[in-house]
Amino acid sequence: NSELFTLTYGALVTQLCKDYENDEDVNKQLDKMGYNIGVRLIEDFLARSNVGRCHDFRETADVIAKIAFKMYLGITPSITNWSPGGDEFSLILENNPLVDFVELPDNHSTLIYSNLLCGVLRGALEMVQMAVDVKFVQDTLKGDSVTEIRMKFIRRIEDNLPAGEE
Amino acid sequence: NSELFTLTYGALVTQLCKDYENDEDVNKQLDKMGYNIGVRLIEDFLARSNVGRCHDFRETADVIAKIAFKMYLGITPSITNWSPGGDEFSLILENNPLVDFVELPDNHSTLIYSNLLCGVLRGALEMVQMAVDVKFVQDTLKGDSVTEIRMKFIRRIEDNLPAGEE
Repeated sequence: NSELFTLTYGALVTQLCKDYENDEDVNKQLDKMGYNIGVRLIEDFLARSNVGRCHDFRETADVIAKIAFKMYLGITPSITNWSPGGDEFSLILENNPLVDFVELPDNHSTLIYSNLLCGVLRGALEMVQMAVDVKFVQDTLKGDSVTEIRMKFIRRIEDNLPAGEE
Repeated sequence: NSELFTLTYGALVTQLCKDYENDEDVNKQLDKMGYNIGVRLIEDFLARSNVGRCHDFRETADVIAKIAFKMYLGITPSITNWSPGGDEFSLILENNPLVDFVELPDNHSTLIYSNLLCGVLRGALEMVQMAVDVKFVQDTLKGDSVTEIRMKFIRRIEDNLPAGEE
């Protein structure tokens, strides 16, 4: 049951809206907090899921949608809209548990309410040497029929070991 | 899996520590946020649990420990230390999922990290016409061996309908 989480997340977003002047700053802050969470969450995820190294971005997409989202949010987004080059895809969330009972007030029309999730994905993937760009491109809170998170592969991060160590 | 919730809760507490001058204000704010959450959560709880009206405070204690905590936090605290008059008891949490990986820094020794829970209980019970006092009296974060939440029955809240309505 994720209700307590949903409401606690709402309290966090509400607090940030009080703290920051404009939605853009709140969006940034949520992304940053999410990044810090992702960096810590990945360890738990690898330990529990027994998932090994992904060989390509398609495999990564599957692991995120079918294992990670299921594990932490109890939903399984569908994977769509692959770019021809295979470096971009979308996660479609029919239901976003974070926004149950949420309505954006008129004066927060540019708030990306669930932006924490983008940060979580970015932070977690960075820990497995994958730099990605993550953003919401559709959101039921904005009147769209589904919520869509777009993920773009940027580059593989090389392990830069200091000279002399291996 | 409550890890994402735990880390998000941590982000909330961290943000409040940035926003408020001292721990006491953070504690108050957490309690207040919890209250607002409890007021909303009770509806979900009554709908899902099919629990009816409790006939006495002992029954209330059982419902809180065995059904509500299980449903929202995945743990079942034990109920101990009843006052002779039956108006006070303690919930003992062997493990508090909110504090996994948390360590209080020295400069936050008076922070009641999980104080949101007190507010949630207070808010939820108020919605079923029960005024209670809820507070942490032991906390593993403070070096205690268990976490103990003390609940005290204050009074039953009468439905005060405006004159002429029934």
